Amino acid sequence: MLIIGEKIDLSQEDIRKEVEKRNEEFIQELARSQVECGAQVLDLIATIGENVLEHMRWLVKTVQEAVDVPLCLDSPDYRVIKAGLEVYSWDKGKKPIIDSTTAEKEKFNLILPLVKKYQCPVVALTMDDRGILDNSLERFKIADKLIKELISEGVPLEDIYIDPIVFPIGVDTKSGDIALETIRKIKEAYPTVKTSIGLSNISYGLPERRLINQSFMILAMASGLDAAILDPTDKKLMSLIKAANVLLDKDEFCLQYIKAFREGKLK
Amino acid sequence: MLIIGEKIDLSQEDIRKEVEKRNEEFIQELARSQVECGAQVLDLIATIGENVLEHMRWLVKTVQEAVDVPLCLDSPDYRVIKAGLEVYSWDKGKKPIIDSTTAEKEKFNLILPLVKKYQCPVVALTMDDRGILDNSLERFKIADKLIKELISEGVPLEDIYIDPIVFPIGVDTKSGDIALETIRKIKEAYPTVKTSIGLSNISYGLPERRLINQSFMILAMASGLDAAILDPTDKKLMSLIKAANVLLDKDEFCLQYIKAFREGKLK
Repeated sequence: MLIIGEKIDLSQEDIRKEVEKRNEEFIQELARSQVECGAQVLDLIATIGENVLEHMRWLVKTVQEAVDVPLCLDSPDYRVIKAGLEVYSWDKGKKPIIDSTTAEKEKFNLILPLVKKYQCPVVALTMDDRGILDNSLERFKIADKLIKELISEGVPLEDIYIDPIVFPIGVDTKSGDIALETIRKIKEAYPTVKTSIGLSNISYGLPERRLINQSFMILAMASGLDAAILDPTDKKLMSLIKAANVLLDKDEFCLQYIKAFREGKLK
Repeated sequence: MLIIGEKIDLSQEDIRKEVEKRNEEFIQELARSQVECGAQVLDLIATIGENVLEHMRWLVKTVQEAVDVPLCLDSPDYRVIKAGLEVYSWDKGKKPIIDSTTAEKEKFNLILPLVKKYQCPVVALTMDDRGILDNSLERFKIADKLIKELISEGVPLEDIYIDPIVFPIGVDTKSGDIALETIRKIKEAYPTVKTSIGLSNISYGLPERRLINQSFMILAMASGLDAAILDPTDKKLMSLIKAANVLLDKDEFCLQYIKAFREGKLK
């Protein structure tokens, strides 16, 4: 399971303020604490807004000074991702992840050149010019189309992360089932293609959000999930993931689980 | 999800001592606390041992004085189950559950008359005279045989609980997968037959057992589990189950989840 830390998110008011102040110490601590808790990649989330290109450039440089893990450059605007890629230091860590494209023609055509130029893994959302469809078969068909197009452009299967799109369960009680079923269909058809979710969306609007996130993470792991953008400082969530790895036979001799126990990391 | 409380278990030294002392207050409190935490059925576990028939009779009477939920009479020895059935008060609560038979010829033939006489739901373990087999296809075949035989004897499909047998994951890292796959196969072939597990077995021998139990419960729910014998006083486990019910579209409008939150029951 690839753990992508979600906490450096410009859409969060408190984070955005510190970024605008260029508070290096704050952002670098946010980066380090996530890595210490087990994040293997850090997401930098920059949606549309004033100076967002400049913010992304500053974030990439500032975070790469603090930690060695790869970054996930996360924006609906290809220009923001492009700005991040241009200042990304390739000496440190591995390739960044481009997050995200969709099957919307215009968006796909803008992101694809970046994926090809930088040869990065890419997250592709299962939506197209019709919008987000409310059943797993249609979402799988979009994934299928995205995968075929990316392959035909030379993107290796293992660099493709399909995001089935997780909607708040409080808005539609079928949204969990739809996302889980989409993951299963993708993994059945393309075992080496990866699947990824933004975990916290599922609990939006409900009380005790962490419980919903924790439960959904385990359900998604049962469906074959490969990666998740989540809060790695939620120690209970991280511990349940380690337990699920044992139970899904992904932790030989329970070694990682027992190591985490000895290090006092299980909660 | 049918929650069956596991805590009245004669194989636990501290419980057995209190039963031998005929400590009514202790056992009745153990019964009440489980029901208050959400147990819908209470398991009375009495394996082989001195005075076990007398113990089972006393337990049934003592527990039924304290709570109104049905009991699960749990023993490998049909005589212990029979002793419990003979003193069971049918005025209170619903039918008891007979736990368990297997496809072992002798055991099946001893339990069947009790199931037919008392018309109770019955738990059937997926093992036969060859023992417990280490793959889900064989376990499913045994389940299939058990279901067909029970139906032919007039047992309604919805009174059949198949237990896929949960082995400690620390002993065999495939045991989780085998149990989960067996559940999926049974639910696919017989959607109205129920599946049940003894949850805590999975974590035997590992540290932080509750984490493993919690994770496995969610994985089993994803596979279609209907009932579990578990510790209902584990508030985190019970909360994660409520979250999973929301996520698996088994809690209309999230009403049960929000009710539990308002009652301060989510942890």
